[in-house]
Amino acid sequence: MIKFLYFVAVSKNFRKKKMTSSKPLILVTNDDGITAPGLLALISVMAEIGNVVVVAPDKPQSAMGHAITINNTLYINKISEENAVITQYSCSGTPVDCVKIAVNEILKQKPDLCVSGINHGSNSSINVIYSGTMSAAVEAGIEGIPAIGFSLLDYDWKANFENIKFFVKKIALEVLENSLPEGVVLNVNLPKLKENEIKGIKICRQAKALWQEKFDKRKTPQGKDYYWLTGDFVNEDKGEDTDEWALKNGYISIVPVHFDMTAHHAIQQLNTWDLNEKN
Amino acid sequence: MIKFLYFVAVSKNFRKKKMTSSKPLILVTNDDGITAPGLLALISVMAEIGNVVVVAPDKPQSAMGHAITINNTLYINKISEENAVITQYSCSGTPVDCVKIAVNEILKQKPDLCVSGINHGSNSSINVIYSGTMSAAVEAGIEGIPAIGFSLLDYDWKANFENIKFFVKKIALEVLENSLPEGVVLNVNLPKLKENEIKGIKICRQAKALWQEKFDKRKTPQGKDYYWLTGDFVNEDKGEDTDEWALKNGYISIVPVHFDMTAHHAIQQLNTWDLNEKN
Repeated sequence: MIKFLYFVAVSKNFRKKKMTSSKPLILVTNDDGITAPGLLALISVMAEIGNVVVVAPDKPQSAMGHAITINNTLYINKISEENAVITQYSCSGTPVDCVKIAVNEILKQKPDLCVSGINHGSNSSINVIYSGTMSAAVEAGIEGIPAIGFSLLDYDWKANFENIKFFVKKIALEVLENSLPEGVVLNVNLPKLKENEIKGIKICRQAKALWQEKFDKRKTPQGKDYYWLTGDFVNEDKGEDTDEWALKNGYISIVPVHFDMTAHHAIQQLNTWDLNEKN
Repeated sequence: MIKFLYFVAVSKNFRKKKMTSSKPLILVTNDDGITAPGLLALISVMAEIGNVVVVAPDKPQSAMGHAITINNTLYINKISEENAVITQYSCSGTPVDCVKIAVNEILKQKPDLCVSGINHGSNSSINVIYSGTMSAAVEAGIEGIPAIGFSLLDYDWKANFENIKFFVKKIALEVLENSLPEGVVLNVNLPKLKENEIKGIKICRQAKALWQEKFDKRKTPQGKDYYWLTGDFVNEDKGEDTDEWALKNGYISIVPVHFDMTAHHAIQQLNTWDLNEKN
């Protein structure tokens, strides 16, 4: 009985409708920068749903993770006309800075939704931790805003975002309708397929994969060594409940992501250590 | 009985001795940069335990989170003499870059331990996600290296690290002795207290706290607006099992941290959504 009551309570909270009669306020950001075609695609989808304000980096900020600017100044630049349908700002900071300055300085009210992307390239598996796109969504989640990061498995600047607009809209509407569990944001990755080739959407866990780095060593014209970080993505996690499996098999993957980094399962083990014995 | 057997199996794996008769190889890094007193303190402690190689940023890289350098070149500079006891390199990249280039380019063998810090200032609670110090430790964890991030709750450049050296050494030795559960690294925060005032060490969970940002708006001499990111740390989590509680009550906090960002508890809830209905 206790379990049942608990489930009802959670479900009720979870299903709480957040939509009102007015259009929702949607904050759009990314990490590829204000000129990225993936951002433009995301803006066009969100404009069908709500009132859109864009605050995106003024230059590419890929792989910036959860970096913020504390030792330098920040600039914002309104780049849309006064009477434009969509208000757009560029920001000199990281994707996380964009969310912080949007919520605390630019917007008059808390957004109903924050969407980040559409990233040019995958943010599945361990990439979530390096991704500026996902870190922006996570930051919005920390600030209590329902948030989604979208990434297309196509690094091409001219990637075809038309194929996935239907799904991006559907997922955004579901989040606005159902809200999200507290402290959870969505990491959505979409395969590079035509709309009718996409088999569906799967809720997944992050695959246990990693990058095997290689450093490409070169010499400057002056003879000094320098390096480019490169590497191979290696996935040895064969689980069919992972984002990697879903994407390889023609599905869109959604991983619920949280920002409690505690490895709760390890607490009991660590408590067996003799940490408080002075020897 | 099943539970008991499981516990024995886990314990056996967990207690696997990693130390050999030779001294362990210890990689030391940080985010305050190669000249930081906290780094020098950490080096001096680790030199009592093992063979130390330092690869640290050539400039302060606080709050860089898990950023990596993919759109720019990386430089490393050996700054120790050929016959020095401790080998030191500075690196032009982020803390995570330092770990990647150390493991994949500089070191001939995988280190037995990676320690990051000692950070000048707290990395407790949500700060773990912004912290370059902790992201370096997490990156080492991703690469399969037992790793610890150390932070002292004192932002002063002249902070007293002598008070905490005993505990830093003790925790490092425990990790070398016991290793760590797979996919787990330690976030260690130490209160600004004298050694005999520190009450002990507590294994904790990350407190649910956040920053309430404030943007300090100023004008350049040319009249252009710019901003400094500032804010107040707000902790409304009163749990006595949190890092914030431990630190406020005179204890050292250890939070086991992992890099599976999946909110596993949310998967079931999200599966109740109508994501695969085309309507």
